[in-house]
Amino acid sequence: MANQTRGGYNGKILRVNLSDGSISTETTDDLFCRKFLGGAGFVTYFLWKELNPGIEPLGPDNKLIFAAGPLTGSLLPGSGRNCIGAKSPLSGTIAKSEVGGFWGAEFKRAGYDAVIIEGKAEKPVYLLIHDGEASIRNASHLWGRNTKETRQAIRDELGDRSIRVAMIGPGGENLVLQACIMNGLYDAAGRGGLGAVMGSKNLKAIAVRGHKAPQIASPERLKELREWLLANMHLVSDEAEYGTGAPMKFWEANGNLPVRNWRDGLFPSVKMIDPQAIKDTIRIGMEGCFGCPVRCKKIVRVEEPYAVDSDYGGPEYETLAALGSNCGIDNLKAIAKGNELCNAYSLDTISTGSVIAFAMECFEKGLLTSKDTDGIELRFGNDEAMLKLIELIAKREGVGGLLADGVVRLAQRIGRGAEEFAMQVKGLEAGMHEPRLKPGLGLGFMVNPHGADHNCNMHDTLYYAMGPKLEELKPLGILEPVPRDDIGPRKVALFRLVQLKEIILDSMGVCNFLPYSYEQLANATAAVTGWDTGIMEQLRVAERILTMARLFNIHEGFTAADDKLPRRYFQPKTDGALADKPLDPAKMEKAKSYYYTLMSWDAHTGVPTPERLEELDIV
Amino acid sequence: MANQTRGGYNGKILRVNLSDGSISTETTDDLFCRKFLGGAGFVTYFLWKELNPGIEPLGPDNKLIFAAGPLTGSLLPGSGRNCIGAKSPLSGTIAKSEVGGFWGAEFKRAGYDAVIIEGKAEKPVYLLIHDGEASIRNASHLWGRNTKETRQAIRDELGDRSIRVAMIGPGGENLVLQACIMNGLYDAAGRGGLGAVMGSKNLKAIAVRGHKAPQIASPERLKELREWLLANMHLVSDEAEYGTGAPMKFWEANGNLPVRNWRDGLFPSVKMIDPQAIKDTIRIGMEGCFGCPVRCKKIVRVEEPYAVDSDYGGPEYETLAALGSNCGIDNLKAIAKGNELCNAYSLDTISTGSVIAFAMECFEKGLLTSKDTDGIELRFGNDEAMLKLIELIAKREGVGGLLADGVVRLAQRIGRGAEEFAMQVKGLEAGMHEPRLKPGLGLGFMVNPHGADHNCNMHDTLYYAMGPKLEELKPLGILEPVPRDDIGPRKVALFRLVQLKEIILDSMGVCNFLPYSYEQLANATAAVTGWDTGIMEQLRVAERILTMARLFNIHEGFTAADDKLPRRYFQPKTDGALADKPLDPAKMEKAKSYYYTLMSWDAHTGVPTPERLEELDIV
Repeated sequence: MANQTRGGYNGKILRVNLSDGSISTETTDDLFCRKFLGGAGFVTYFLWKELNPGIEPLGPDNKLIFAAGPLTGSLLPGSGRNCIGAKSPLSGTIAKSEVGGFWGAEFKRAGYDAVIIEGKAEKPVYLLIHDGEASIRNASHLWGRNTKETRQAIRDELGDRSIRVAMIGPGGENLVLQACIMNGLYDAAGRGGLGAVMGSKNLKAIAVRGHKAPQIASPERLKELREWLLANMHLVSDEAEYGTGAPMKFWEANGNLPVRNWRDGLFPSVKMIDPQAIKDTIRIGMEGCFGCPVRCKKIVRVEEPYAVDSDYGGPEYETLAALGSNCGIDNLKAIAKGNELCNAYSLDTISTGSVIAFAMECFEKGLLTSKDTDGIELRFGNDEAMLKLIELIAKREGVGGLLADGVVRLAQRIGRGAEEFAMQVKGLEAGMHEPRLKPGLGLGFMVNPHGADHNCNMHDTLYYAMGPKLEELKPLGILEPVPRDDIGPRKVALFRLVQLKEIILDSMGVCNFLPYSYEQLANATAAVTGWDTGIMEQLRVAERILTMARLFNIHEGFTAADDKLPRRYFQPKTDGALADKPLDPAKMEKAKSYYYTLMSWDAHTGVPTPERLEELDIV
Repeated sequence: MANQTRGGYNGKILRVNLSDGSISTETTDDLFCRKFLGGAGFVTYFLWKELNPGIEPLGPDNKLIFAAGPLTGSLLPGSGRNCIGAKSPLSGTIAKSEVGGFWGAEFKRAGYDAVIIEGKAEKPVYLLIHDGEASIRNASHLWGRNTKETRQAIRDELGDRSIRVAMIGPGGENLVLQACIMNGLYDAAGRGGLGAVMGSKNLKAIAVRGHKAPQIASPERLKELREWLLANMHLVSDEAEYGTGAPMKFWEANGNLPVRNWRDGLFPSVKMIDPQAIKDTIRIGMEGCFGCPVRCKKIVRVEEPYAVDSDYGGPEYETLAALGSNCGIDNLKAIAKGNELCNAYSLDTISTGSVIAFAMECFEKGLLTSKDTDGIELRFGNDEAMLKLIELIAKREGVGGLLADGVVRLAQRIGRGAEEFAMQVKGLEAGMHEPRLKPGLGLGFMVNPHGADHNCNMHDTLYYAMGPKLEELKPLGILEPVPRDDIGPRKVALFRLVQLKEIILDSMGVCNFLPYSYEQLANATAAVTGWDTGIMEQLRVAERILTMARLFNIHEGFTAADDKLPRRYFQPKTDGALADKPLDPAKMEKAKSYYYTLMSWDAHTGVPTPERLEELDIV
């Protein structure tokens, strides 16, 4: 059994130690794969198992793990994804981030399911994984280059234009704590500062090329699922036509859109920056990830007042809000330029935009002055300042050095109550969706192991438990709608289900935009692996992964007190639909405790008991 | 929606008040049926909803509920079952008992899903339900008669030999707390003293006749399941060839067989009373329940030294152990006679045998003397005494009156430490399977709302989590065997799953002997009802039902301290395979607490929190 290659897996983990240059391969058995699934599951398992508590995230003891799921690179639409994780330098928690594009599928075809990067290279290197062979190569000549130059140089050097590259730009090299890792030029593993970890290891890139896809146990069953999606493209018609953020105008109206560091509600010029505006002005096309017919990636080109290189794609919704409305900016071209810069420098647009918005508010409040900002008038709406700051952050120059460590550290330096409007949880800046509108999302921000990541809870897919969503939930026992503003026990139970579904997706390597039901996901896993699996097993695997992640954080000193939202969410917005609707702290605390209960952790401390760990085979 | 008749249901609840003679019908809607399913679910719902805490179980305020499940009377093999419940006069807890035969299917065809009996008739009556019409009829002439005479008289009176009758004999009339309700002459709703509740209401019988089966949403899907079973009859070949108890000799060897009030292990003459011996000697045939091809019911005939009427069937395993080995009796004919008497008098063979075994041990210990027993030498192995006591118990005559209230009350009267070997939980005498061999079963005895019922946890089906059983469990996330003697967290999780499965079966109206997987059960529900349901929903419904039952008990004053086993299980057996294997009380307490945790109840008190109730829609 130990060496059996099961469907969907290569059955091999690549381990690369950059300190001593050693490269080795470990095999996985069927039981291991079934227990941890892949992707986020593998990442979490190895981080929990192999990292000692208290290690320095930017030191050689941290490990950077890239993992594909059993679906990654299959023909299932939406399965072009992989997961990356490490101990986060931004938050000190476990970090994991999902990313699309083409790298994951190519990595899978190169013969591995995961690669664990250990240690630190003496000088810049990149890793090449090519049809089952791995080699560490010099990257001194690539250091300092942006992502486009880096990819091109590697492709030229290897003489293969089809090579796929995951890499960092100067942001990662300079250990900016918001640095991301880019799969190509517009797919980012954004959250948690993984780019800084890569930079700290002197690892510029991982280039992959492969020609052998793992076998699929039942290609027919997978084909059926693909055909189902193709016959139901209307379910993703918004994404296909507009990409992410199609309802942005509606979100401004209902309060979901963050405006000026989450302070305000109204932003009438949303119509100038939303995906409709993009389509009408700067958009020149749409692209998609490996094997996916949805093609939700905007491609934009701008000629003046500055050029925006279309190779860097166009802004996702998160970017439109983070660099746009949340900075009070309604200049679409500037946002597109900011997006290009972040992708070129490998900066997470959410955290980068958030720290800029936070600094703008500090500036307007007088907590930062033009002395601190090298003379930049850091006011809401100042698009030139936003662009300038991205450059400075990436290079850690001037005021950029102040912002390059994220909102928590900046708030700590500023003091004087600034942390109350530093919009983060556990150090991770919040995704661009409003907990005051969707308290279930707020609960997700609170308890998600890697902080305020909107992607941990399928916020828009399932918080509206009605219509087709309710039909999906009924076979799970959720028979009646759970209102959006509810945060009682029924919402907590629903949240737990959607949180676990997200982990399933992240572990399988499937995009959460695709409208697969729980049952279809289980079917997809069965089709690929040949296991007689089902929803129950999938949820149990997700509980195992989530509990390991929680344990990781507990060992790092995190407690239930860290599962908390910043103060601003408990205050009303200044205007708009949520002007009189702050979150209720008592209700949120109660929801948190009930969430612990439903996870069978200690209801008060949120600590998984030894019994729970034994039951979940976390040993 | 409210009046829609969904597949599998009549959509009607019959309510009969025997105090004022009123008869009414209530309709159920789709959501209600989906939330509570039927059978045990309906019974638990109405008892929890309608009974005030503290009512006298044998007074007019108690309600006796008969309910069919959506599968009852369908063509699915094993679906000839219904549930009966009330507040138990034996334990004071909620009581429910499942029963096979033909009554449930006929009741369903008579137009109802459940009948709620309220109040108390002034003089003996029986209820006739005939094609949607219900009437209360005089039964004064039936009072005092045994079950066979009763059924015959009703059939004669109504001129219909096909009428099915659920009824009590003298045991129920005399309010014997171990009295059961008989579906026909050899299918008993045995546990919890439901026969006494029926007797207390002066209700002798419920006669049913109907001609209209509820529609089935997808007969084809149900047919597939039926065909699957027919193609897999080897999975139930033991039951089909021997009926219950085929492995009795093996159980004597491994310690599962209770011997002499659970004190001893060895019982070499097991070979004289086991189903093989029955087949070789007194068996004249096998019968089955409605629509079931398994035909596991032994039919026996004895001519001398006393006649055993074959119309009363033959002893199940529980009876062979309860009236046999646990009383130290190896006279098969006497056991068969005891079985006949219990069925004729409507006495639960488990509780009746248990109280006799307990009295025998008390007698041997000198805690009871021949003065107490009207001169009967109440020693282990005395088959004549056993038969005599059944008569006396049913009639509450002499020493029978002492035994007619069950082991707990008898132990209380005797005092002097007798309760330590009164083998019951919450007043319900234990089913004939050994917790010291299967601690997971012991946990079931502890936490089951209606006491030490072996049927609450599919003990023999799933405690061996290996082979085909493990294959069934894998899609639920149980990937590795859980050893039989384990009582750690993994066993607790497994127990929870099997306990919930039993509740699903009991609510659907399906026998737990049939080897259906969780998924097949969900498929069967979907096939009958047309709901797009699945395992998750079924388990959630079961959690709802179980939590309501726990709540019922809590309102009656039961606490976690009542979830405990009698002392003897923590002592070794005197001999045999378990001579050095007592249960560990600390481990059992820990398992209990973890079970509460997995049920999302309070880990220490076992009380479902208000949040849990709200989440499960128990309002």
